[in-house]
Amino acid sequence: MTISMHAASVPVFKQLLGSLADILAKAEAHAAQKNIDPNALLQARLFPDMLPLVRQVQIACDFAKSVPARLAGADVPAYEDTEQTFAELQARIAKTVALIDGLDAAQFAGSEERQIVLRPGTPKERTIGGQAYLLSYGLPQFFFHVTTAYALLRHNGIEIGKKDFMGAF
Amino acid sequence: MTISMHAASVPVFKQLLGSLADILAKAEAHAAQKNIDPNALLQARLFPDMLPLVRQVQIACDFAKSVPARLAGADVPAYEDTEQTFAELQARIAKTVALIDGLDAAQFAGSEERQIVLRPGTPKERTIGGQAYLLSYGLPQFFFHVTTAYALLRHNGIEIGKKDFMGAF
Repeated sequence: MTISMHAASVPVFKQLLGSLADILAKAEAHAAQKNIDPNALLQARLFPDMLPLVRQVQIACDFAKSVPARLAGADVPAYEDTEQTFAELQARIAKTVALIDGLDAAQFAGSEERQIVLRPGTPKERTIGGQAYLLSYGLPQFFFHVTTAYALLRHNGIEIGKKDFMGAF
Repeated sequence: MTISMHAASVPVFKQLLGSLADILAKAEAHAAQKNIDPNALLQARLFPDMLPLVRQVQIACDFAKSVPARLAGADVPAYEDTEQTFAELQARIAKTVALIDGLDAAQFAGSEERQIVLRPGTPKERTIGGQAYLLSYGLPQFFFHVTTAYALLRHNGIEIGKKDFMGAF
């Protein structure tokens, strides 16, 4: 009655990173077809104090890289948040997929009990076990940003649907 | 290096159902304070062919009830989709929490290999194993609707933040 921490993380992140890449490709094609400045989508927000599309994608990638990598005890490479175009966002997604593809399932052994420090060195520092880190923190955070990116593009008229969001599984 | 199917499902759904209830309570209070017709929020959409808030909440509850119940081999009660008010949506969330609280962890034994039929009797019928049903289908669907409800309310000026979305864990 159990599943591995690897199975509960890497394939899920990869599935939704794949759908995020497809959704962004459709948005880019839509902009080209309708003569829309790509930045009108890349910098779109659902409300003035929400983050724009570019940041939603960057942060989705951050959770997709850091959650599996930290569970696996691997180094988490820093990404510089310099992406300005659809092509650059695609590259960020691709390098995130490559990173987590490079983690071996065996590295996740015992990770459900590995102690993970959230926001280290800040007043909000908190230590939680690996299982909660994945299920109660990492996946909700990741899905939040992928779905917000989708919602932002839907709100801007991109013709995508739930099937695009769900991706291949 | 494993986690139980119960641990990977029931607590996650409960965490986000709790945050959904809190977010809806804030939206209701906001409407009352600003003399906004509650229906202006309940029937709000991010785009004309997207579902309104009421349906997003109903569907989030549907996945939160059916995914754990089917994994546990329990009956899935039908909900009638008659909710029209914030109070009625809160009641639907509460009965969903009560339902999955009533499932025993032991009922999830072997559920990662239980065969689940999606969309039975339709042209899109498909059978998948319990592990994929939870991780690749159920959780993405659930998070999609909870996040869309959040995004809809944020877009309408409700003062909520990521902390509200994440809930208590």
